[in-house]
Amino acid sequence: MRDLPLSRVYQLLEPGPVVLLTTSARGRANVMTMSWHMMVEFEPPRIACVVSNGDYSFAALRATKECVIAVPAVKLAQKVVNIGNCSGADVDKFAAFDLTPKRASHVAPPLVAECFANLECKVIDTRLVNAYGIFILEVLKAWVDPAQKNPKTIHHHGFGKFVVDGRAIKLKSRMR
Amino acid sequence: MRDLPLSRVYQLLEPGPVVLLTTSARGRANVMTMSWHMMVEFEPPRIACVVSNGDYSFAALRATKECVIAVPAVKLAQKVVNIGNCSGADVDKFAAFDLTPKRASHVAPPLVAECFANLECKVIDTRLVNAYGIFILEVLKAWVDPAQKNPKTIHHHGFGKFVVDGRAIKLKSRMR
Repeated sequence: MRDLPLSRVYQLLEPGPVVLLTTSARGRANVMTMSWHMMVEFEPPRIACVVSNGDYSFAALRATKECVIAVPAVKLAQKVVNIGNCSGADVDKFAAFDLTPKRASHVAPPLVAECFANLECKVIDTRLVNAYGIFILEVLKAWVDPAQKNPKTIHHHGFGKFVVDGRAIKLKSRMR
Repeated sequence: MRDLPLSRVYQLLEPGPVVLLTTSARGRANVMTMSWHMMVEFEPPRIACVVSNGDYSFAALRATKECVIAVPAVKLAQKVVNIGNCSGADVDKFAAFDLTPKRASHVAPPLVAECFANLECKVIDTRLVNAYGIFILEVLKAWVDPAQKNPKTIHHHGFGKFVVDGRAIKLKSRMR
């Protein structure tokens, strides 16, 4: 995994890919599937995401205030769905789905080695957790896998329908 | 425009498309380009979005607590970029970009007739506006244009690079 400058993190999440979120509590790592997230600040990169109190990851995220957001390419799509269809209360998902946990440098939850990008995050604001499950995260460290070139991400349209990244276009823009 | 059931609104925004946001203040409509948004609740559909206090739309959104989120297909891509590259302080964007404002049913800001979906929204929570520019919206009414079949949306990767929706895949899933 190669270091990614924090100034470029927004380019990973702004397009809206389905991601994985890892947590760790009492020495046990877990992973969930997540589509409700957005950028909030370019640098330091800040992210808002929704983790519902019905998600098994909720308690670990609220208690430890640490997570990793891992971005899977389309080759992991069926695994990503399967991860979302079961609970860490019942399943050791890293083992069940043959994912490789990799030690992070700033947080306890593991990176997911199979994902092309991994973002080490701490929770910096919980004011909207009770009302909406909204956590505000700050990215401490970002990693990309240089072996995965031009990875295509997936975007959820509901009920198992996903749209895969298609062609890229370049338009004249002054926007970052 | 045809009515879209509110239960299906999340399927429009969860995939992370670039959208337009219209506001209206003192009888004058404005429109901005936005990529920082996420679903927060299925039904009633609730959305979080970031509108910075550097955006001209910020004052109107905070004062009137109303907006419309309009979802453009790829054919509008260059127009969407141009809308993001100027300010409503200087330009009447509906006129400059030849967009057709259409009266909404529940809010003062207009729908954008050229977009394939339009969501009439009210602001329901401003607690994180000062800290992050995060507004929590509730969708009151949703519209789709039945004449635009299988619209492809665009996803921003920074500096004028956009990825267009590619192929759709269907995976066995129990997730909504």
